[in-house]
Order: sequence, then structure tokens, then C-alpha cells
Amino acid sequence: MSHPTETEKCIESLIAVFQKYAGKDGNNSTLSKAEFLIFMNTELAAFTKNQKDPGVLDRMMKKLDFNNDGKLDFQEFLNLIGGLAQACHNSFLSSQKCM
Amino acid sequence: MSHPTETEKCIESLIAVFQKYAGKDGNNSTLSKAEFLIFMNTELAAFTKNQKDPGVLDRMMKKLDFNNDGKLDFQEFLNLIGGLAQACHNSFLSSQKCM
Repeated sequence: MSHPTETEKCIESLIAVFQKYAGKDGNNSTLSKAEFLIFMNTELAAFTKNQKDPGVLDRMMKKLDFNNDGKLDFQEFLNLIGGLAQACHNSFLSSQKCM
Repeated sequence: MSHPTETEKCIESLIAVFQKYAGKDGNNSTLSKAEFLIFMNTELAAFTKNQKDPGVLDRMMKKLDFNNDGKLDFQEFLNLIGGLAQACHNSFLSSQKCM
């Protein structure tokens, strides 16, 4: 891919970001709870800091961890990005600010 | 978002790309079959041109169109991106080339 399209760049970014945060504890195929919190507070700080409920990240992790193994695999991570994109898309359609 | 992170940029890109292609026929909340084909042949041409089976895009559209209305909404579009990212991530883990 010498000249990646916007969609290809986005797919590459999703993989690179997941690898970056998932690799912090040596196992780069899953996000541990600690890695998830670092990811959320770094990459999505604009979202995280607007949450008034301090338990929101705990509940998000539990909800995303579909197979309940205490870690997020890449598919579970993609569900997070998809959920946020969906929420932003809905805001966009109703002309509200997203993040 | 004056300085968006890589994840925020990616979420914005997904929405912008969907809007761009979904808006070609005036209804920017869904991708018609024609819009889906333009999207695949423009944004994911590296993937599309490597498919030897000419029916692959038809089958992808049918598989992605979960509610079977002949159009892809944003959630169905995200499933496409997620599926491709998952396939690329698997290639990455086994050190193969993706796209």
C-alpha cells in the first residue's frame, strides 16, 4: 500500500493503536483492564473526562468483555470503537457536538 | 477536539468516509448497493482487485446487510470495517501481508 486510502489508513490505525496499548504488559493480543484504562485516559480523554460517573469505565470494560475473561481481544476493542463511532454518527445526524 | 488523538481521528474518518459514499444518492444515512460498490472499488481497491471470484462483493453486501433491506446502515458499515481490520490483525499476528 504505497498510497493508502482514508479507509485503509483507518484500518491500519485501529490495529496500530490496539497493538500499542495491548503490548504494554507484554501480551499484545489482549487489552488488560489496566491497559484499557490507559487507552481510554490517553486516546479518548475528551470522552473520559466528560463522564461524571466514576464507575463508567469499569462498566464499559465489563460490557465490552463479552467472553468475560477480564481482557479485551481485538474484536471486543472494535466493538468499543464501533459503539463510539455510532454514538458520534448519531450526534452528527442530529447536529450535536461529538466528543 | 483541537488536537485529536489517533483513535479520535480514526472515528472521525469512519464517519466522514461513510457520509461521503452514503451521500452520493442524496440519502446520507445508508449505503445503497451502488454506493457500496463505489466505496469498495475506491477505498478498498487493493482488497477488491485481489479477489478472483467476481461474486465476492455481491456476497459481502448480502452478508453485511443484516436486516436485509438492500442497504447498509452505519452499524452494518462498521461491521465491514471491523471484519477487514480483524482479518488484517490476524495476518499481522501471523506475519503475513495485509491488503
